[in-house]
Amino acid sequence: MTAGTPLPSWRPGATRDALLGFLDAARSVPRADRVAYFDNDGTLWCERPAYVQLEFFLSALRRRVADDPSIGERDEFAALLSGDQDRVCELGLARIALALAGLFEGFTPEAFTAEVRTFMATATHAALGRPMSATVYQPMLELIGELRRQDFTVGIVTGGGTEFVRAVSEDLYGVPSELVVGTLIAYDFGRDGSGRPELRRTGRVLGGANEGPVKVANIQTQLGRRPILAAGNSGGDREMLEWAVATDRPALALLVDHDDAEREFAYAGKAATLTEAEPIKETAARAGWTVVSMAGDWETVFPR
Amino acid sequence: MTAGTPLPSWRPGATRDALLGFLDAARSVPRADRVAYFDNDGTLWCERPAYVQLEFFLSALRRRVADDPSIGERDEFAALLSGDQDRVCELGLARIALALAGLFEGFTPEAFTAEVRTFMATATHAALGRPMSATVYQPMLELIGELRRQDFTVGIVTGGGTEFVRAVSEDLYGVPSELVVGTLIAYDFGRDGSGRPELRRTGRVLGGANEGPVKVANIQTQLGRRPILAAGNSGGDREMLEWAVATDRPALALLVDHDDAEREFAYAGKAATLTEAEPIKETAARAGWTVVSMAGDWETVFPR
Repeated sequence: MTAGTPLPSWRPGATRDALLGFLDAARSVPRADRVAYFDNDGTLWCERPAYVQLEFFLSALRRRVADDPSIGERDEFAALLSGDQDRVCELGLARIALALAGLFEGFTPEAFTAEVRTFMATATHAALGRPMSATVYQPMLELIGELRRQDFTVGIVTGGGTEFVRAVSEDLYGVPSELVVGTLIAYDFGRDGSGRPELRRTGRVLGGANEGPVKVANIQTQLGRRPILAAGNSGGDREMLEWAVATDRPALALLVDHDDAEREFAYAGKAATLTEAEPIKETAARAGWTVVSMAGDWETVFPR
Repeated sequence: MTAGTPLPSWRPGATRDALLGFLDAARSVPRADRVAYFDNDGTLWCERPAYVQLEFFLSALRRRVADDPSIGERDEFAALLSGDQDRVCELGLARIALALAGLFEGFTPEAFTAEVRTFMATATHAALGRPMSATVYQPMLELIGELRRQDFTVGIVTGGGTEFVRAVSEDLYGVPSELVVGTLIAYDFGRDGSGRPELRRTGRVLGGANEGPVKVANIQTQLGRRPILAAGNSGGDREMLEWAVATDRPALALLVDHDDAEREFAYAGKAATLTEAEPIKETAARAGWTVVSMAGDWETVFPR
């Protein structure tokens, strides 16, 4: 990046002006309140055609099934492995995610992290033809960099598994594990053969999926500081973005719009729940959020 | 502090040597793993004759009762206000703490934080004759400073209320709120009269008191990084200290021994639970932890 040219991957225009205007205005905010939280899937990196975390679990599942084919007979796994989308939808992603998380029941945190890192070091994104770790969005990395230069604390608030994202957040985004809030698996405390304390993953989810209003409550309980910038791309980010701008201080709600079929994927942000009526882009328009058009606002999408 | 004289409030001797030896050895540990967690009450600041948090709640209770005497008739409050220690013990500190936390049900996080800060700005410690905010231990502040100079991440893992400690942790210790893990109150997500999102404190405790093995599990879920230094002073810190040193890396378990009746208070660390048999000092001796004698190892106890 050239000195004097902040956000080089953002094209000149209203969106870039809004970011620079916010960065400028934030200088008046006390440092302790300069807090920015980003959703991860679809906001900081590509989530199509499948969540990276789902690819990770699928790869683990395939290895388990190769060792013991009977594992693949479980309903949730059979649906996934056969690619039967109707059956997958019928079972529901929440139930399938729980079954997949169960593959790592009994693992220590260190062993789980090592598996994620091995996956990320080798997996590729077939459709984009690049390493999975290089499906992060270059313009968002630059925004994070600018925020840090202004002494912002930058965190990730994701619907994905907390430990999955923590395993890669420092490398990909420079975000330490304590600033990652996601969907949590509970641990059991126990002792190893030598009587030394150890933690083992359970199959239980703590406090439900980190989506919608749960994101706001989890930010308060786990991080304790309210953001003045929140970025997301789906209905699951609605309340977090609303909360960030419900202040008299300079604040920014940023919604990434996936409208770039050529360089990434074009799709509407998913609703947070089945009963969620208003599409997130309509909320954004009504509330005056800053909408990022990937096609229009980004000169570059992925790192070179 | 003079350059070249680290830890000036620590007297020369085996304890100071152990700290300096650990700080030196930690240079070989990758930065991401340089993590130190401190218990708060009795480890970073004075917890006698009563927890600071209890003094805060009592002061709030007295104000409420002045407005509405009927509030003081509740069993838990009557016992506290009358100073009837037998009755307090009979009811149990957990039940009383829950009743006190209930005084702030319906508060926003911001309103609660403001009350804590007002209290801390004005309260004094009668027995020590100094501001409550100056009952922190100067030698521990110096240790935290040395750890930071070596790029350690420093957090607080307390049995106290998370939000209470967060309200003062940046000012007292330079620890940001996301690095404070304590006993958590749940929040309800709702909307104010203008439809803006807001959080309100409930009377529910999330996941139980942050003591003993719960500290270890909460470190994993909320912070995600294992410490190589853990400091505590009671049975509630046992598992955290054991966990910190269950590694092949340089690691240090530090137990503060309150043996200084003259400058602070002399008492044995409380057991974590009623069934907890082994006094924490015996665990420390058996495990080879570094025991800090306040009377012997500290040249200065409180900031001047």
